[in-house]
Amino acid sequence: MQDRALSEATHKDMANAIRALAMDAVEKAASGHPGMPMGMADVATVLFTRFLKFDAAHPDWADRDRFVLSAGHGSMLLYALLYLTGYPEMEIGEIERFRQLGARTAGHPEYGHAPGIETTTGPLGQGIGNAVGMALAERLLNERYGDDIVSHYTYCIAGDGCLMEGISQEAISLAGHLKLGRLIVLFDDNQISIDGPTDLAVSDNQLERFRASGWHVAAVDGHDPEAVALAIENARGVTDRPSLIACRTIIGYGAPKKAGTASTHGSPLGDEEIAGAREKLGWAHPPFEVPAQILSTWRAAGAKHRQAYERWTEAAGRLDAASRDHLVEPIDAKVAGDIVRAIASVKTDFAAEGVKLATRQSSQKVLERLVPVVPGLIGGSADLTGSVGTLTKQHGIVKPGDFGGNYIHYGVREHAMAAAMNGLALHGASSPMGGTFLVFSDYCRPSIRLSALMGQRVVYVMTHDSIGLGEDGPTHQPVEQLAALRAIPNLHVMRPADSVECAECWELALLAKDRPAIMALTRQGLPLLRTTPTEENLSAKGAYVLIEPDGGRDVTLLATGSEVSLAVDAAKLLQGDGIKAAIVSMPCWELFDAQDEAYRQTVLGAAPRVGVEAAIEFGWQKWLGQDGTFVGMRGFGASAPAQELYKHFGITPEAVAAAARELTVKK
Amino acid sequence: MQDRALSEATHKDMANAIRALAMDAVEKAASGHPGMPMGMADVATVLFTRFLKFDAAHPDWADRDRFVLSAGHGSMLLYALLYLTGYPEMEIGEIERFRQLGARTAGHPEYGHAPGIETTTGPLGQGIGNAVGMALAERLLNERYGDDIVSHYTYCIAGDGCLMEGISQEAISLAGHLKLGRLIVLFDDNQISIDGPTDLAVSDNQLERFRASGWHVAAVDGHDPEAVALAIENARGVTDRPSLIACRTIIGYGAPKKAGTASTHGSPLGDEEIAGAREKLGWAHPPFEVPAQILSTWRAAGAKHRQAYERWTEAAGRLDAASRDHLVEPIDAKVAGDIVRAIASVKTDFAAEGVKLATRQSSQKVLERLVPVVPGLIGGSADLTGSVGTLTKQHGIVKPGDFGGNYIHYGVREHAMAAAMNGLALHGASSPMGGTFLVFSDYCRPSIRLSALMGQRVVYVMTHDSIGLGEDGPTHQPVEQLAALRAIPNLHVMRPADSVECAECWELALLAKDRPAIMALTRQGLPLLRTTPTEENLSAKGAYVLIEPDGGRDVTLLATGSEVSLAVDAAKLLQGDGIKAAIVSMPCWELFDAQDEAYRQTVLGAAPRVGVEAAIEFGWQKWLGQDGTFVGMRGFGASAPAQELYKHFGITPEAVAAAARELTVKK
Repeated sequence: MQDRALSEATHKDMANAIRALAMDAVEKAASGHPGMPMGMADVATVLFTRFLKFDAAHPDWADRDRFVLSAGHGSMLLYALLYLTGYPEMEIGEIERFRQLGARTAGHPEYGHAPGIETTTGPLGQGIGNAVGMALAERLLNERYGDDIVSHYTYCIAGDGCLMEGISQEAISLAGHLKLGRLIVLFDDNQISIDGPTDLAVSDNQLERFRASGWHVAAVDGHDPEAVALAIENARGVTDRPSLIACRTIIGYGAPKKAGTASTHGSPLGDEEIAGAREKLGWAHPPFEVPAQILSTWRAAGAKHRQAYERWTEAAGRLDAASRDHLVEPIDAKVAGDIVRAIASVKTDFAAEGVKLATRQSSQKVLERLVPVVPGLIGGSADLTGSVGTLTKQHGIVKPGDFGGNYIHYGVREHAMAAAMNGLALHGASSPMGGTFLVFSDYCRPSIRLSALMGQRVVYVMTHDSIGLGEDGPTHQPVEQLAALRAIPNLHVMRPADSVECAECWELALLAKDRPAIMALTRQGLPLLRTTPTEENLSAKGAYVLIEPDGGRDVTLLATGSEVSLAVDAAKLLQGDGIKAAIVSMPCWELFDAQDEAYRQTVLGAAPRVGVEAAIEFGWQKWLGQDGTFVGMRGFGASAPAQELYKHFGITPEAVAAAARELTVKK
Repeated sequence: MQDRALSEATHKDMANAIRALAMDAVEKAASGHPGMPMGMADVATVLFTRFLKFDAAHPDWADRDRFVLSAGHGSMLLYALLYLTGYPEMEIGEIERFRQLGARTAGHPEYGHAPGIETTTGPLGQGIGNAVGMALAERLLNERYGDDIVSHYTYCIAGDGCLMEGISQEAISLAGHLKLGRLIVLFDDNQISIDGPTDLAVSDNQLERFRASGWHVAAVDGHDPEAVALAIENARGVTDRPSLIACRTIIGYGAPKKAGTASTHGSPLGDEEIAGAREKLGWAHPPFEVPAQILSTWRAAGAKHRQAYERWTEAAGRLDAASRDHLVEPIDAKVAGDIVRAIASVKTDFAAEGVKLATRQSSQKVLERLVPVVPGLIGGSADLTGSVGTLTKQHGIVKPGDFGGNYIHYGVREHAMAAAMNGLALHGASSPMGGTFLVFSDYCRPSIRLSALMGQRVVYVMTHDSIGLGEDGPTHQPVEQLAALRAIPNLHVMRPADSVECAECWELALLAKDRPAIMALTRQGLPLLRTTPTEENLSAKGAYVLIEPDGGRDVTLLATGSEVSLAVDAAKLLQGDGIKAAIVSMPCWELFDAQDEAYRQTVLGAAPRVGVEAAIEFGWQKWLGQDGTFVGMRGFGASAPAQELYKHFGITPEAVAAAARELTVKK
């Protein structure tokens, strides 16, 4: 419901406060993007003063409306709003230190830098994907908890750049399909991009485009507060479809000469233009000073939902303890305990059964146990459900307008899947996992990077993890993806060697609260190596000695995933020659790297080393030492049955044994 | 103009030949995708027999229509067509060896495996992007050479999966904007994806979606040859807009039980179903046998444009020799010579001027010299023209429907830019280069991979290549992208240290006929290091000794790009301590790796080594040896002025000197 409109004068002053803070902060930083905040100040003022359900004093309110600034370069819009409405930690000093080292006000909004920053944006289009995930989380939780506990909107401001990025189409299409009626995208239709007027590069009819994906659409003058309010009001009323409101704005609104041009986009306006803007806007106040009356009106807006917050607190208080905990953290102590028990039991079963399984199959069996005990575990796949094993008997499918399930058919939209999973995780109460082929990690890499940068627990189930996928050929065979993913900071790349390690890796992935994980899994069957059950999670140290030969090592064979069993076979061949080989399984390099030097040296040993992985060598040098040898890929793969490919590319027990022999002779 | 229609019976037989070959080849391979070829056989038969301008005997005909199978999993459709129409090298034996090691008939179409495979497809949506690039190349060349020499259509078959991928939207939007009227996309509207009916995941109105991007659209029954023919005829007539024809088809058409279901998508049909299909289709012939009359009708279709080919040969014969050469190879011997001279002259000028320049600026200056001498050099940027320096005074802008220029405003569409650049390169006669920020290489990584896999000369100008970009913060600061790109096989990642190296890297990038290159360039200014002009391209060996101290080395400092000058400053500090440091600049690891062991050892030297790069260490171990040290990033960056960031992250001459001191003491 639309709240009482501000007087015209008040609205103008409040919007101008945003404009002034934005242009002055960018000027002081000598860097930044004033144009967007100045252009969208009116829309944001309407949204924050009349609609957005939030309480600045309680930024963690689980049922707050989510606000995503997908056009993250306009970060000063967000920082100004947080300061003006009175969010904690966003003092005026932070605005003055915009873009300086250690400030909460980074060049682009960084999740975790200050309350009220719901997600990290800047790479264009990501915010729309996040918003879709948040809006989806809201509906899933609404289904679980009811209207009193979870019932809110997700608003997203997106620019031309966001809408040009392909990820936006994936997100729009997914949201329209699912009928995410609580998602409202405000399009900053300023018709300016970095290179100049958007008509240099784009001629899309955005309204028709969104409509084609099942959205409610509207277009308004973004500088007419009543028109904007009416459009938002209408959009809120349409709950069976997401809504797009195209807000026609003037970039750099108020700048006397530069308004409406690309020159306001990404550079300070300059003293003269700023002076002119002050005059034109009727804003006589010095930089970083907001007159008390305007500030207090803003602060009142920041507190106006206090009663709603209190009603919600009461309602939440009536929840049972477990539900209350899950609203904050889907994997709390109780659930974590359940996970540990489930993993222990599945490990025991795997060891007892001793069956040859592809790790994608082991993963599915693990999930059969996990899904019932992790209510927030939201599964899905980018149209490879059967291949990646993410769907279990325990899952219900989420359908358009029907959010009773916990499994999403994301469609062939890897990028939006990943961005939506970030949104699900950021929203709280959801722990997303989704699958595709490892090679298509390239298609969602920008979002994987953001999972890592934001420290979100998102589990990427990435199967068909080598030439072992066989006939589909080089376009589908990852050779460099393991290296490329290992290169991303704060990301755990897990490549289990058998079903027991697979279970252990799932445990690690779900219990790591503040980082994403890649589960790199095979298409092809792998023998059980961990035949002796261990209570300890041996994968937790990232690498460990799987087989230590009696009487000291002559050589150490290091391998991951499907190549560990190959190394074991090589060791048998070497035994015939009287060469004693230790086998080290390395399911997660990052965890191994985090161990102390002593442990790492014990595992790696002093003997010469051979690394084995059906991928390129890049990065392996770290573990192999000066004289180590690598058996793996030297370039792209080929199309043929998997076993033939292993032979063709010389990744065989015989080749590993030969490499080891050569090293031991040298020594 | 539509050619005379086949009799109904003939059409049916010809389409069934495709279906039979597809289902039998997949069955024999026990792997593959029969559904799509069986579903699209009618459409493809109409296209290849009535419209497509090609001559199977002359697959390199520069003015042939291009046919792109974006839905690459349907590779048997293409292989069947190439065999049936009589392309060289596509014998029936190749069809029988579908998906086997060394066959031309890989699981997905692989460029270079056989004539008639215009591009490598399989990763969905890429083919649409390639087709946009090809259609653009056609118009650019038409403008240069006239209708007699270049005037053809580009056809692309795309499936639901292609249209769900975000890259398709970028490509569709770009094509609509540019008014690429000779591009015709045939949408295999079979309403089935891997997970099941497409309505599990997508509800888009594709016709409206394309229409919103300025396309001509039509929908037809894909099993009604006359309707398909009429729709193609109409689409060819619409030359001011690209065209989409949604062809409603039944996946696995002819399979008695499985037709119309996901089970025909990616698995062999099985003996029983194949027998049933033979009956249903009225195809009594054994596997891999096409009756002589049907084959000869197909072969006639493969030769029906022979006269057009001969007319074209005549017309092309009237071209001057240079133009004729460029039609095949945009950088022929003559142009290569011009490039060498241009680079020599700009190197001399850079050395003489001795000005501090960002390498993005040096690159622009180099391009000012190159654009006039490389007529096929097609520039562009993903809406960062001013920032990346890809636009020169020599460029003209390509505008909607106006193809007189040689510079493309690709919009904020990195992925489609890269895929279109692949299409430009594949088409022939064009040598594309396009720019964005290095961190956004993630947004186009699937297409970069395909540039490398296909061995296409595409130059990616990737600027703002480290924390040196400053205030935009961690979302915009590449730290792992250099490693991730170096991990891609057959890709040259160039990171020049100054303007002279920048010129040398451009020379290397353009003269390497069969691989793409990344030009990783700085935002910030760098001092000139190569003050003494050399005729030799020192960067050609990938790494070289920039400074060799008198009297032997105590330590070797290895660095790339902006950190080379930092290493030089460190060496000066070390000199004060009596430590003699050699400086090795490593602009291209891949080229260095390709040198002989002796050269590499000379460059790397026996002294302890310090690596310096404002990026993560991943991969550096290869050069540093067991005892080397690395000075660089350990995680994501931060938002602050560049110089402060270098200090904050400890990437300074002082830190490098300290690391070197420690090593020399240890020694």
